[in-house]
Amino acid sequence: MSDKIALQLHDTDNVLIVLSNIEHGKQLTPFDLLSNGLIPRGHKAALTAMKPGDTVRKYGQIIGIATQDIAPGEHVHTQNVKMAQFDRDHAYGQHATPTEMVPEAQRATFQGYRRPDGTVGTRNYVGIITSVNCSASAARLLAREAAKRGLLAKYPNVDGIVPIVHGAGCCIGTDDEAFYKLQRTIWGFATHANFASVLMLGLGCEANQIPLMLEVYGNPPPEKFRYHTLQAEGGTRKTVELGLQWLEQALEYANTARRETVPASELTVALQCGGSDGYSGITSNPALGHAVDLLVRNGGTAALAETPEIYGAEHLLTNRAASPEVGQKLVGLLEWWEVYAAKHGSEMNNNPTPGNKAGGLTTILEKSLGAVAKAGSTNLNGVYKYSEKITAKGLVFVDSPGYDPVSITGEVASGCNMVCFTTGRGSCYGNKPAPSIKIASNTPMYQRMQEDMDLNCGTIADGTETVAEAGARIFQEMLEVASGKRTVSEALDVGDAEFAPWQTYAQM
Amino acid sequence: MSDKIALQLHDTDNVLIVLSNIEHGKQLTPFDLLSNGLIPRGHKAALTAMKPGDTVRKYGQIIGIATQDIAPGEHVHTQNVKMAQFDRDHAYGQHATPTEMVPEAQRATFQGYRRPDGTVGTRNYVGIITSVNCSASAARLLAREAAKRGLLAKYPNVDGIVPIVHGAGCCIGTDDEAFYKLQRTIWGFATHANFASVLMLGLGCEANQIPLMLEVYGNPPPEKFRYHTLQAEGGTRKTVELGLQWLEQALEYANTARRETVPASELTVALQCGGSDGYSGITSNPALGHAVDLLVRNGGTAALAETPEIYGAEHLLTNRAASPEVGQKLVGLLEWWEVYAAKHGSEMNNNPTPGNKAGGLTTILEKSLGAVAKAGSTNLNGVYKYSEKITAKGLVFVDSPGYDPVSITGEVASGCNMVCFTTGRGSCYGNKPAPSIKIASNTPMYQRMQEDMDLNCGTIADGTETVAEAGARIFQEMLEVASGKRTVSEALDVGDAEFAPWQTYAQM
Ligand SMILES: [Ca+2]
Ligand SMILES: [Ca+2]
Ligand SMILES: [Ca+2]
Ligand SMILES: [Ca+2]
Ligand SMILES: [Ca+2]
Repeated sequence: MSDKIALQLHDTDNVLIVLSNIEHGKQLTPFDLLSNGLIPRGHKAALTAMKPGDTVRKYGQIIGIATQDIAPGEHVHTQNVKMAQFDRDHAYGQHATPTEMVPEAQRATFQGYRRPDGTVGTRNYVGIITSVNCSASAARLLAREAAKRGLLAKYPNVDGIVPIVHGAGCCIGTDDEAFYKLQRTIWGFATHANFASVLMLGLGCEANQIPLMLEVYGNPPPEKFRYHTLQAEGGTRKTVELGLQWLEQALEYANTARRETVPASELTVALQCGGSDGYSGITSNPALGHAVDLLVRNGGTAALAETPEIYGAEHLLTNRAASPEVGQKLVGLLEWWEVYAAKHGSEMNNNPTPGNKAGGLTTILEKSLGAVAKAGSTNLNGVYKYSEKITAKGLVFVDSPGYDPVSITGEVASGCNMVCFTTGRGSCYGNKPAPSIKIASNTPMYQRMQEDMDLNCGTIADGTETVAEAGARIFQEMLEVASGKRTVSEALDVGDAEFAPWQTYAQM
Repeated sequence: MSDKIALQLHDTDNVLIVLSNIEHGKQLTPFDLLSNGLIPRGHKAALTAMKPGDTVRKYGQIIGIATQDIAPGEHVHTQNVKMAQFDRDHAYGQHATPTEMVPEAQRATFQGYRRPDGTVGTRNYVGIITSVNCSASAARLLAREAAKRGLLAKYPNVDGIVPIVHGAGCCIGTDDEAFYKLQRTIWGFATHANFASVLMLGLGCEANQIPLMLEVYGNPPPEKFRYHTLQAEGGTRKTVELGLQWLEQALEYANTARRETVPASELTVALQCGGSDGYSGITSNPALGHAVDLLVRNGGTAALAETPEIYGAEHLLTNRAASPEVGQKLVGLLEWWEVYAAKHGSEMNNNPTPGNKAGGLTTILEKSLGAVAKAGSTNLNGVYKYSEKITAKGLVFVDSPGYDPVSITGEVASGCNMVCFTTGRGSCYGNKPAPSIKIASNTPMYQRMQEDMDLNCGTIADGTETVAEAGARIFQEMLEVASGKRTVSEALDVGDAEFAPWQTYAQM
């Protein structure tokens, strides 16, 4: 801990965040500035004088404009700041700037599994994936039987056998986006680079037909993919027997995989936050954003998701879209969400709540920036549907709900081979097959839940580390985990029960 | 096998079902009647002469009216039968008749677990139930650790330790029926009579707050229920440790339970069909219906569900509703379903498809009767929302989708302590904590999937057993399984991955 009591989140910001309740006339250490009036913890103090019409900047971005004269050290909030109409303009690509890439020869690398199809895995699992809930128990029984027999012991290069089960797959229409979403999600896992080989199990009569998926997406080579249905094979026990036979070959094959040096451009990181608190937006999220900037500058890819959290503030992303088409696709998603929410009697509204305002959030921009901060500052290079394969490099967006397991399921199905998850209240999330780095926003929670946390960014609020320092540390951790360092959730063996495809259909 | 080639499903029927493709002039053994023209397999032949306006009866119920003269032995189908307007009349309760109850002293009994709260279990499990996906891995790790340590070995009266995990519980509105549905479902399992004791695990910050459930539903006694959250306990490992401590007490307590003789009125059976085929409606479903009539006459309860399968034919149930209110509640559910389906771009339509017609189904009544046949012939005594606690005895209806795991999840949450599941294509379903009797509609599938089938009703089409005989056999199996006889799915240990709450909310 230091005696720092104010924080500048970006060097172009004209506001500071105060870290405790501040009385009038107190020095905003380490800044040579006195508070001008009471400022509650987590709220903003003016670093420089502002006049009406001046922009207010936090995270290096505009969060509103001053409505009156603001003196240095004064409390900056709803009484002297408003949203400006220009802030709401989608301004497609108007703030897009070329990314300063790290020179090719100096770019970061990691030790990954290069697959025959050219994709790169950060882990080397074999998977037992289900097309429908009706084969879920068979998949779990197969995994359990393999564990009982200790099959993995002979295959030191294999990270594990992962059953991917869910409650969906039948009694749904098969000719609309709601179904395609489910199909893409299941297929995205079936062909994920972190699986050396996959067995798909179905019942046989389900709506989500395995042969139809093969028709739509193509049939992977036999060493990578096989399928059985319980009805064709004569039931649970016989299918588990066939699965055990398959496992012998699949494990043998998977065990031949070796890590090799690959460029950081083969890393695709799913960004996520869950159980956010007042610190998330000022510590872990900006630090992760800094790490994402480093990743992107090294040629890698990061996927922002959680569409409801950017609602009403989508111009934060459209104005740095790499092309108008990319920006328009994002706006199209938000229009779909309005209909989706209304249909269910819910409402899209990311405006600051009274609680948010009490916590110091002044505008919807500032609130959404707290979430978007984890995406860093580079251009938005692509927008994808839920579980749609990511093809662009750099920063991209994948449509999803905010709910962690459902969101990450889509991100991983889209091709993310790692997850970075910031949390304030504390999440015990883990994912298989994608290793998940969990990043605490505050030190007390980190200490309380240390066994479930990989990194602590509470250091930023504690004053012992800058955002940039914490970001560099996260980027280093990404490379190490991508190269095989185990996350805490992997050490605990968390991640077998988090496959949660987004269901937007009517379950009939 | 016998040489029987025609089947009368109910003794008041004026049509027969033919069991193979029949040429003109062939005897419809065992009936003293010649076919009058070609009749395809599974289609209907007139048993008696009909005139225009005469009712056509199958399953002892009206499926349409004759539009022209029909001679005995003639093919009865769309060319000479139509729906009549009066069939579509809800006619609340107009066909309700007093059930001929078995005299009190002669009623069936079984060996069940009488719980301190008066409910009766057919099994004696302990449960680890999750409020949200964020604690799913912790629940599975706890169950696995208990298995590794062989904790059950010391407690021979305990059937097992069941993790109940799912993909839901957060980022949803908490003030509407969609949320209450989820809450009721989770709580219905938490307080199910087949669990002697339950530990509920949450993360802590989820929308589906455990303390809120306790407020709404009341706090069960400590030997029956405890809860922990990962955030309060300091993470995954510490919570699993606490869970292991709880398990010692919970298993000790559960192990003191003993089966005792209880009346069949303590049995509440969830009815289900999945993977139906052309035989389901003429073999397994009517046989199960006969068993349900026996159960009801002995004071027991059976829950029909799968609302989409009765759509358009709900008068089959409303006309034997015990009261107008019961009938109206059913009609209200169907109106809700119309909106639900339309909202998602789906359509409610249970009319016979061209394929159904080719298979011999003439009207929507006949098609729905194939499904409703498994509910038998007694009055409809209650209609319940998904996972709403069943309070009536006799035949009741529980709203649900047709999809097996989602439907049964609601039926079991509503209080069913057993499942009877008919299947034509073959299902490998199992449920914990409710034992599931699986009933094959045809002998070839039964033989192919025998390890997953408890009973075969293909015997009815084979001509070696009548519907009534098969029904009596099913009722006997219900009592034996309720008393502890293991089902095939229990022997295989299927049933840990089928908890699938119906999600009708917008996942935000
Ligand atoms: Ca099934
Ligand atoms: Ca989230
Ligand atoms: Ca992990
Ligand atoms: Ca069903
Ligand atoms: Ca069972």
